[in-house]
Parts: sequence; C-alpha cells; structure tokens
Amino acid sequence: MRVQVQSRLAYNFAEPTETIAVVLAAHASGQTIESEKLAYSNGVRLSESVDPVSGGRLLRGRLDGPFWIEYSAIVRLAPRLELPAALQVAPWSQLPVGVLPYLLPSRYCPVDQFLRFAQRQFGHIAPGGARVLAILDWLHENLDYCHGVSTGTTSASETFIDRAGVCRDFTHLGITLCRAAGVPARAVSAYALHLDPPDFHAVFEVFLDGGWWLVDPTRLAPIGGMVRIAHGRDAADIAFLTTAGPVRQTDMRVTVTEIAPPSLVKPSYNTDTVEEAA
Amino acid sequence: MRVQVQSRLAYNFAEPTETIAVVLAAHASGQTIESEKLAYSNGVRLSESVDPVSGGRLLRGRLDGPFWIEYSAIVRLAPRLELPAALQVAPWSQLPVGVLPYLLPSRYCPVDQFLRFAQRQFGHIAPGGARVLAILDWLHENLDYCHGVSTGTTSASETFIDRAGVCRDFTHLGITLCRAAGVPARAVSAYALHLDPPDFHAVFEVFLDGGWWLVDPTRLAPIGGMVRIAHGRDAADIAFLTTAGPVRQTDMRVTVTEIAPPSLVKPSYNTDTVEEAA
Amino acid sequence: MRVQVQSRLAYNFAEPTETIAVVLAAHASGQTIESEKLAYSNGVRLSESVDPVSGGRLLRGRLDGPFWIEYSAIVRLAPRLELPAALQVAPWSQLPVGVLPYLLPSRYCPVDQFLRFAQRQFGHIAPGGARVLAILDWLHENLDYCHGVSTGTTSASETFIDRAGVCRDFTHLGITLCRAAGVPARAVSAYALHLDPPDFHAVFEVFLDGGWWLVDPTRLAPIGGMVRIAHGRDAADIAFLTTAGPVRQTDMRVTVTEIAPPSLVKPSYNTDTVEEAA
Amino acid sequence: MRVQVQSRLAYNFAEPTETIAVVLAAHASGQTIESEKLAYSNGVRLSESVDPVSGGRLLRGRLDGPFWIEYSAIVRLAPRLELPAALQVAPWSQLPVGVLPYLLPSRYCPVDQFLRFAQRQFGHIAPGGARVLAILDWLHENLDYCHGVSTGTTSASETFIDRAGVCRDFTHLGITLCRAAGVPARAVSAYALHLDPPDFHAVFEVFLDGGWWLVDPTRLAPIGGMVRIAHGRDAADIAFLTTAGPVRQTDMRVTVTEIAPPSLVKPSYNTDTVEEAA
Repeated sequence: MRVQVQSRLAYNFAEPTETIAVVLAAHASGQTIESEKLAYSNGVRLSESVDPVSGGRLLRGRLDGPFWIEYSAIVRLAPRLELPAALQVAPWSQLPVGVLPYLLPSRYCPVDQFLRFAQRQFGHIAPGGARVLAILDWLHENLDYCHGVSTGTTSASETFIDRAGVCRDFTHLGITLCRAAGVPARAVSAYALHLDPPDFHAVFEVFLDGGWWLVDPTRLAPIGGMVRIAHGRDAADIAFLTTAGPVRQTDMRVTVTEIAPPSLVKPSYNTDTVEEAA
Repeated sequence: MRVQVQSRLAYNFAEPTETIAVVLAAHASGQTIESEKLAYSNGVRLSESVDPVSGGRLLRGRLDGPFWIEYSAIVRLAPRLELPAALQVAPWSQLPVGVLPYLLPSRYCPVDQFLRFAQRQFGHIAPGGARVLAILDWLHENLDYCHGVSTGTTSASETFIDRAGVCRDFTHLGITLCRAAGVPARAVSAYALHLDPPDFHAVFEVFLDGGWWLVDPTRLAPIGGMVRIAHGRDAADIAFLTTAGPVRQTDMRVTVTEIAPPSLVKPSYNTDTVEEAA
Repeated sequence: MRVQVQSRLAYNFAEPTETIAVVLAAHASGQTIESEKLAYSNGVRLSESVDPVSGGRLLRGRLDGPFWIEYSAIVRLAPRLELPAALQVAPWSQLPVGVLPYLLPSRYCPVDQFLRFAQRQFGHIAPGGARVLAILDWLHENLDYCHGVSTGTTSASETFIDRAGVCRDFTHLGITLCRAAGVPARAVSAYALHLDPPDFHAVFEVFLDGGWWLVDPTRLAPIGGMVRIAHGRDAADIAFLTTAGPVRQTDMRVTVTEIAPPSLVKPSYNTDTVEEAA
Repeated sequence: MRVQVQSRLAYNFAEPTETIAVVLAAHASGQTIESEKLAYSNGVRLSESVDPVSGGRLLRGRLDGPFWIEYSAIVRLAPRLELPAALQVAPWSQLPVGVLPYLLPSRYCPVDQFLRFAQRQFGHIAPGGARVLAILDWLHENLDYCHGVSTGTTSASETFIDRAGVCRDFTHLGITLCRAAGVPARAVSAYALHLDPPDFHAVFEVFLDGGWWLVDPTRLAPIGGMVRIAHGRDAADIAFLTTAGPVRQTDMRVTVTEIAPPSLVKPSYNTDTVEEAA
C-alpha cells in the first residue's frame, strides 16, 4: 500500500523555548519513504538527528514567536499481519536487553499498581498473543472513546477509573495491562489512514516470539495503513512536540490518503501518450 | 580510594518467577573492579548481560522457592569532584540524543506536574550547576529523612506533599525538580561508603557541560565513596531486584568498607615473607 | 451595605436527572434578605428546604431537557471585620461538637497528607489568627490565579503541586492547610461584590475564639461585600448545582451591585410626595 | 441477641496532643446498652459529648505520654434483616435533607470519579436493593481481603485499582459505588461478633425506602452481631482515635462474645440462691 501523509502544525511561543518536534515518518522496516518534503518558518534553524532508541527523527531548535512546520511524504507500506493468538512470550532471560524497559512502569503506565488486577483478569489466559487479544477486547468493552475527559497529564490509573479517553489513553491503559500481565509493550506514534477525524494517532506494540506486533486499542484505524513516526515507553517519549515551557498551538492539520502504486498510475499516462500520438 | 563491597540478598519465591537482579558493580569510568566474586543458590542458573543504556549488569533467571545471592568486590574509585556552581546547561539541540530522555517525565518523576513550581522556585537562578545546588539545598531544607512514610509505589508528587522519605524519595523529587527546571537528571544505584545503616543507596546525576555529575540529595554519604551499580530514568530502571510477581525478602545485608591501597598492604606480605624466610 | 444580587443559570438535561440547586442567599446572621425573586422554567416543580448543617436553601427536582433558573435579591449586609491576628484556637474539648468535622479531611481537602508540611511551615506561628494570616500570605505568594488548569475533580493535593487555580482551588488548599495546622475551616459559597469577572465565588471561614471568620484566599473581592449562599466541608457540599448525571451548562450570569440604602432613597419619594401634595 | 464488648487501646503521645476517642457503643435504635464501664489512665480528664450527626459518643481531651483506655459493655441487639432486593431509592426531592450528604464525594470516597463506571456496571440493574446487592457481589468477586496493601490515606480509587484491602477499604469502595450509582451510603464503625481476628470493624449502610440498612462488604461477620459505635461520610468521620499530631499505638485488643440472655442466666442465680438457702 502507498499512502500520502501531510501535516501542518503551528504554534505561538511567548519567549525563546527549547523544542523538539517529531513529525517525520521513521526509517523503519515495513515502511519505505519514497519522497518527503519538510518546510518551516523562515529564519528558524532546526537540527535533525535520529534517536536510536525511539527510532524518531528529532527536529530540535530554540523557537520564539509564531512558528509553523509542514511535512508531506509518500510512504510505501508492507502489509501488516493482525496479531496471531498463538504467539508466545519469551522468558525474561531470553528477551533482548533492549526490550526489558518495556516491561517496566513508566510515567503514564504505572504497571506496579496493576499487577493484581492483571493477574485476576488475564492470568488464566495463555501468556502471549491470546492474552494480548483478551486485553484488547477488555479495553474495547470497558472504555468509551471520547474527547474532553482527559488531559496531557492523565495516566492509565485515571483512565482505568474513568473508563473513557482518547487514543493516548487507550494506548496507555493497554500498555499498562500488557506489561502487568508479563508482555513487553511500547507506545507508537503514527499517521493513520482512515482515522476520522484525522489526527496524530497513538497505538502500541507488543513483543512476542521475537518481534514487535502493532495493535490499535481504539479499533479506529486499520494497522495496515499506519505510517510509523516513533516509539517509546509512553506518550512522554513520542510526543510530536516537546517544549521546555508553555506554548500555544494555533493550528494542527493531518491528512493521510491512500494513493495508487506507481505501476498502476503509469499506464494511464501511456494511454494519454498513445492518444496524443494518434 | 579502594573499597570493599559485600552484599547478600535472600528471597522466597512462592512460584517460578521471572527475575532480574542488578547488584554487580558496573564497569564504568571512574571505577575499576579489581576483583569480584558472585555466588548464589545451588541449582539456579542466572545469565549475565550488560544493558548498554543503564550500564547495569543484569542477572536474569526464573527463580522458585528460597533463593540467595552474594556478591563481593574490591573496587578502586577515582576521586569525584563536588558539583561546581559554574557548570552550564547546553541548549537541547546540542545535547547528545541519548541524554534527552532524562529531561522527560518517568514513572516516579512526573516532571509535567512540576513545571510551574520549578519556574517559580528556581527560575531566577542561573540554569546549570547553581540551579542544581539550589535544588539540593531546597531538598535538604524541606524534606525529612525517615523510614516508613513511603512505599515502592511512592512518586515524587507524594513526597513533595508529604515532605519526608528515604533516599529513593529524595532522589525522585530531586530528579523531578531538575528536569522541570531544564537540567537532564538520572537515577543511580550505588554501594555507598559510610552510609549508616548500610543499604543499597539511590542518588542521582545531572548532565552539565557535557558530562554527568553525581550528587547525593540525602547528604548521607560522600559521593567519593560510591560504587556505581546502574543508572536509569528512576527507581523502576535501577531496582536491585525486579520480578514478574510477588516475592518475599528474607535477608538483606550490605557492607562497604574502605581498604588500604595495595601498596600499603604489601608490607604485611613482606612481613610474612620475612617470617617464611626466617 | 446593601447589594443587589442577580443570577441566571441555564442547562440542558439529556434525560430526567435528579438535581439540587443552591443559589438563594442564605438566611444567616450578618445578612438580611430585604426582598428576593425566584423564577424558573415553566412546568418544572422545585421543592425548597433548608439544610440545617450547610445553611443552604436547597431547590430540588427532577429535571429534563432545557432548564433555566433566575434569582434576584436585595440583601443588607452587616459590616464584616478582617480577621484579627490575636484570635485563639480553642482546645478540641471546648469546641462545639458541630465544629469538629471541619478539622477532618474531606474530598478536596486531604488534610491527612499535609500534617508534616503544615507543621514545618506554620507550626512555629502562634495557633489562631496569626497562623491563618500566615497561611493566607503563603497562598498569595505561592499560587497563581488562573483559569484552565483545574477541573471539577481537582483536589488541594494537585493544586499544591501545580501552584495555580481558581477560587475553588485557593479555598480548598487554604482549608486543607488550616485544618492540618489545627484550625477548623469550612468552605463558603457566595455572591461577591466587585468580583471581576462576576461569578459564583468560593471562599472560606475559620473558627476562632468561638466564632466563624470569613476570608477570601484569592484576595479578589472584599469580604464586606459577600452574600452568603451555603457552607460545607468543601466544594462538594456547596456546589450551586449537583446532579445525579451529566448535564450541559448553556448559560451562567451573575451580577452583584452595591445599591444605596433605603434611607437615602426615601427622600426622593418624600420629595415626590411633597410635590404631589403641593 | 446479647453481646459483651470489651476493648483496650493504649498509646504513647510524644507531646500534649488534642485527641478524640470514639469507642463507646452508640445509643441507637436496635441496640440497648444494658451496662457499660469505661476506664482510662489516671490523671487524665476526658469530656464526653454526643455528636448528633454521627451518633458517636466523643471522648475528648489533651493527652500526653502513655495513655490507655478500656471499655466494656453488655448490649442487647434487636434482630437485623438482610437487605431485601426489592427496596427502592427515593427521588432526591423526597429524601430527608440529612441524607443528602451521603450522596456526595468524601475524602476516601471520590464519587465524582466513578460515575461512568457505576453507570456502565450497575446502571442496568433496578435502582435500590437489587443494585446494592449487585455492588456487594462485585466487591466480593473483585477484591482480595488482605492486610498490608493499604494505609490510613488509601482511598477508594487506589483500592479500585489495587483490588485488595481490609474492611475499611471494602467499605470505602462500596460506599463510593453506591453513591455513584445513586444510593445514599454512609460508613459505620462497629464491634462485630465473630470477626476473626477481632478488631474494630468498618461496614456501611444504605438508605432505601426511608431507612438505613446495614451491610458488611467483607462478608466476615454477621450483621446481626454488630454493635454500632458511630457513622459518618467515611473513615475520617468514624475513626476510633483522631489526634492533632502523630501518636504511637502500643496496644489494641477487642473482644466480642455472645452471652446468654438474662432470662436464661437467671436460673443459675436461682440455683445459687437455693444453695445459699440450703
């Protein structure tokens, strides 16, 4: 599948503020960036570097006053499989060392508070894919998707009580329950095809049978149409904008559209050419 | 300085439980492990691997029933400087990418909740060493060191309200305030000379002028006598024991003693030699 | 002083919902309701009763669909003294039994978490008026008055960390610190002269030397111009609208104006009469 | 039924501390105190007064150094019915004004956070006795009774996540869910027959069809054997000891035993008399 991604963010900084923007599609297995274009406010200088842990392509700078940034890309996505129930969790001693942090509590995923609930609710289900699928079903049955009930400081504890939230909240509670149930899980930011209304999306991945598997706990967008931006322990690691101080957002637009593959587009030009030649 | 470190931990596992122990002195700049010895329950197999992010030497295994582990080492420590007030914080764009996570909120350090307080309390002090020293003074003046008021799920928010805690709590609040005030900070687990009563110690490091500087927010032990075990975002990353389920501790003993350098010890061997010669 | 109070609230109830409105001026010492007028949506029947504990005049009913309620009153206020520093706290055994609950933790005032801070910060100041004045100064110096940082579930713990809020938050933290420092304190809802922008106001009272003394922790309105509506342990007890389910507010207007006393108004009537007589 | 109640509490106060003890059986409908005896440390003077809201008999004083208090009573209990499913909740406008506070959030019962969960989980069950019984079943199925997981500051939010606690925690979550589901509920402290190990017990009452109905969410003791001490919004209101500062408990013993009714005891006195007469 090929998708075209477009995003535009605009902010107003009241004073010079250290800032990191992470909006570029990641160079990751399963997705190929065919072309991309980045533009931002005149006079600003952002430095780009890749975070080897998050996979994110960081744009860093000290921003002041009004600022806008626009990104567009055409990305070819390899097909993604739905999570098979039969996948297994490896013993901790056989997990890659880099996977271990995704078993631990993090800012918005207080795993340490959920051990008893996870054991009670999911402990009887075979550890692995089946258990993760049970967690996803539980989220679907027990959470309402709605705006306005959570904020940027809402953690999985609050969502667990409040039983409602947005993609960020579903993802935090999903990650928390997976980790508490023994499955490594990490947050992923993505551009998502068919997400309505379009927005930056937060989903998560679980580590089973030696690989990371992507799932969308909100069930709002197909996993096959997601363009990965970055991953991390939770929203703190994958925010599309991190600033050292307060800032006011003045615009945010995201568009993700499926586009025909080059091989299918080409013939129509050929036909045109033939007609012209006639 | 040369110190001898000894620790013994014992647990009782009610059922087979995935476990990670991080008790070995780290191979880190500023400390040289001259000799070390590790022993644990017969019949147990632990695999050792180094976490490149935390620097920790992980011992992993699936444990059941009673378990004990003993470690001793002789470590030569390079002198450590007290944090100079004149050190500077670099702009974000000039920080190594690997340092950036230590500016973010983590499980026990909810930086996002403390931005206004940090600005009010420390914003007028030059960012850098002076600001960190002010934070350390604030902790010293505003927190009581006492046992029994915090638990393994206590975060810096609760310590900030309760105004009391142990080394872990001082460290979490210290890290939280540093990050909220713009200074990268990370937790460090250590064996600490002169800590009374002896115990695993939790301290923290700040990143200033291109390097990490160790500080002890409890002021209970000299930083020059600390043998580093691991570092991370907070206590979740550097626990000396992480388990996938409940476990009961049955013993914990730590001893750290300064020992004479080899050159001073030698005469006694000479004496022996003399005696032998006699 | 005589003030005219006017308020209008409007809501939309998605389904029949049990509701309590507390918007009428209280019959309380220090204020005399000279005249008042209450009106609300046609077809609705509200029952009025006085809560002997809160002093509030409760309007209760089961509401559905759009609903509006309008209240206006002319209230004569006796002068109110500013809190004297010399007032004393009585020993618990000499407090009226009905005052004791105002020493206890309540929903938004978790007194039990603040005992150590209150002792550290205010314990050296003579218990009584001086200590309350010190708490009011502390609030003024340490909190920013601002909208949008708190919600209806924000407690004093969160405000203590966040260092910002609205009148409700100032009041909750003020009450919490007073109780933790040994001074009975309760929340008061009021119509407040000179509050800008006009709104329902939340202030608090402390019990010293046998009486309740009103204070405004926000310092936004003079205590002499406040028309009392109800009091209670915290905002839960004195909300102007409590409903058994979700509801959407569609309008809220409050006006409080000082009006001339009758004695000054009367002459003009006399003049008229005289003229008529002429 | 007749029960004999005995309790002994001992404390050590580091400095003179305002204190309220509530350990005497209440004068309440359904229980008659046939005899009672109160004793406490020599030289201490406690004043007794009844709180008309809580029904508690308060013993107040300023205590210092070691202190002990012993209470014993013989109480005749009227039979108590198990909660019938058919009981109804009255509309708010028909509830006695004094019942309304028991619908509101309180310190350990943050009702405002549980509205959505209560509606999702219990909203389809007829409001009234059936709904309360469903809540009691839910507590029984979802909470583990265990010591050491909660403290004196634990609220129903934490218990809801942690899924474990003691009688106080079961009661707080039960009250929270009842209120959030529209049923007035209040905490009750009691001496409980057959509670093992014996201790002060915390249970709760719901207001249905014009009366308060006692339930024990832990299912550890029969409601027919409970001697009421006091009631209130939550544990803050009904603590057996409230102090203005820290205190160390040095002893606590509770005994509750069923004793034969006077009519059955009498013959033995008769026998004695006969013997004497002989």
